[in-house]
Amino acid sequence: MEIIGEKINTTRKEVEKAVRERDAVFIQDLARRQAEGGATYLDVNSGLALYPEEEAEDFAWLVPVIQKVVDLPLSIDSGRSRPIEAALKLHSGKAMINSVNGEPAKMEEIFPLVKKYGCRVIALTSSRDGGIPATSGERLKIAEIIATEAQKYRVPLEDIYFDPLVMALSTQHGNGTLFLETLRGIKNNLGEAKTVSGLSNISFGLPKRRLLNQAFLLLALGSGMDAAILDPTDKALMAMIRAGETLMGKDPFCAHYIGAFREGRLDA
Amino acid sequence: MEIIGEKINTTRKEVEKAVRERDAVFIQDLARRQAEGGATYLDVNSGLALYPEEEAEDFAWLVPVIQKVVDLPLSIDSGRSRPIEAALKLHSGKAMINSVNGEPAKMEEIFPLVKKYGCRVIALTSSRDGGIPATSGERLKIAEIIATEAQKYRVPLEDIYFDPLVMALSTQHGNGTLFLETLRGIKNNLGEAKTVSGLSNISFGLPKRRLLNQAFLLLALGSGMDAAILDPTDKALMAMIRAGETLMGKDPFCAHYIGAFREGRLDA
Repeated sequence: MEIIGEKINTTRKEVEKAVRERDAVFIQDLARRQAEGGATYLDVNSGLALYPEEEAEDFAWLVPVIQKVVDLPLSIDSGRSRPIEAALKLHSGKAMINSVNGEPAKMEEIFPLVKKYGCRVIALTSSRDGGIPATSGERLKIAEIIATEAQKYRVPLEDIYFDPLVMALSTQHGNGTLFLETLRGIKNNLGEAKTVSGLSNISFGLPKRRLLNQAFLLLALGSGMDAAILDPTDKALMAMIRAGETLMGKDPFCAHYIGAFREGRLDA
Repeated sequence: MEIIGEKINTTRKEVEKAVRERDAVFIQDLARRQAEGGATYLDVNSGLALYPEEEAEDFAWLVPVIQKVVDLPLSIDSGRSRPIEAALKLHSGKAMINSVNGEPAKMEEIFPLVKKYGCRVIALTSSRDGGIPATSGERLKIAEIIATEAQKYRVPLEDIYFDPLVMALSTQHGNGTLFLETLRGIKNNLGEAKTVSGLSNISFGLPKRRLLNQAFLLLALGSGMDAAILDPTDKALMAMIRAGETLMGKDPFCAHYIGAFREGRLDA
């Protein structure tokens, strides 16, 4: 499973401060610790910037600062295409854009960038910002629309990471199975397409959130999820993922699992 | 998920001693603690008894001793039909027999007891003692043979708990997915039939067994497993099951989960 580290995000106060003050040491430490925890991508979000120009400048500073210390591709997390392109211009390796959705204007804005820079892209199964369909059937339909549109730009399906969208269990007790059903639907219907999600919304409003998040991650892994946006410095969560991957038959001779044990990575 | 408590088993030295010495206090404490942990069945095994008569006497002592202190049905765990019947004669409620398999002589011995005493039965998807097929297709075939044979005795399919059989991941890294595939096959092909397993064999020979066992239980839950044979006094494992069931949409308003939290049952 690909692990997209979520910690470089300016909605976290100390990250916002570090970006505003151009504190490279803080950001690089956050990057390094996520890489050491097992991240394969690092999400970078500077969404608190007021203007697109400011966000573009933030990215232009962040991307080289991060890639100087970790050999990982980045997930450029922004709602605006100009800052995204500012990041992509400076990026080494196969970046990810976070995100597109089923809105025509959004696809028209994002897919040319995906093609031009040879990126991967996270595709939310919602049609408009904030409008998330209530059934897996509707979400699958949006995924299919996105897949069809991507073809027009010759973006290969295997580079699209569909997000089935997690909503809180506390608002509707079927939200977990709705997510898993949508996930399996995407894997079944869209061949080479990938799946991704941040899972922690599931536990919003409930006690023992880490327990629910760990359990939900395993259920998603069992349903074929390819990538997750999470905190790779959370050792218990990462240990659970390593165990789950080994159990899912993805680890010949259990070599990665045993290696992780020897490195102390299974101690929670 | 039904939880079959595994602890009253004479392969555990202290249990063997308690049964030999007719130490009711010890056994009743073990029964009570498993019930408090969340068991819905208690497995009772006195398989170290040398002779069928001795095992029958053990059961005749154990069954009333246990059912005096807990209001739970028992899973009568024996390879011999006479001790099983000795237990069933004294049992209150809907017992479970552990187990039958696809061997004709075994089915001929066990199914009449299942019918006569209105029990549930665990059915191993192996054809002979020790002979476990290497593919899920073969295991499914055995399950179908058992289901067909059960019909002749008018044993309803919903009372049969098929065990897809867990083998160690350390001997073959596909053993986890083989199990899950067999489990889903049984649920898909055999309608009302139930599924059960002891899961801890999966981690044999590997480090951090509890981590693997927890993760595997969630993967099994996600694939529709109905019951598990495990240690209900293991708080971390039970907390993970409660989280998993809530996530699988089986807990309207998350009421059981929140109740478990309030009772301190989610603290691992």
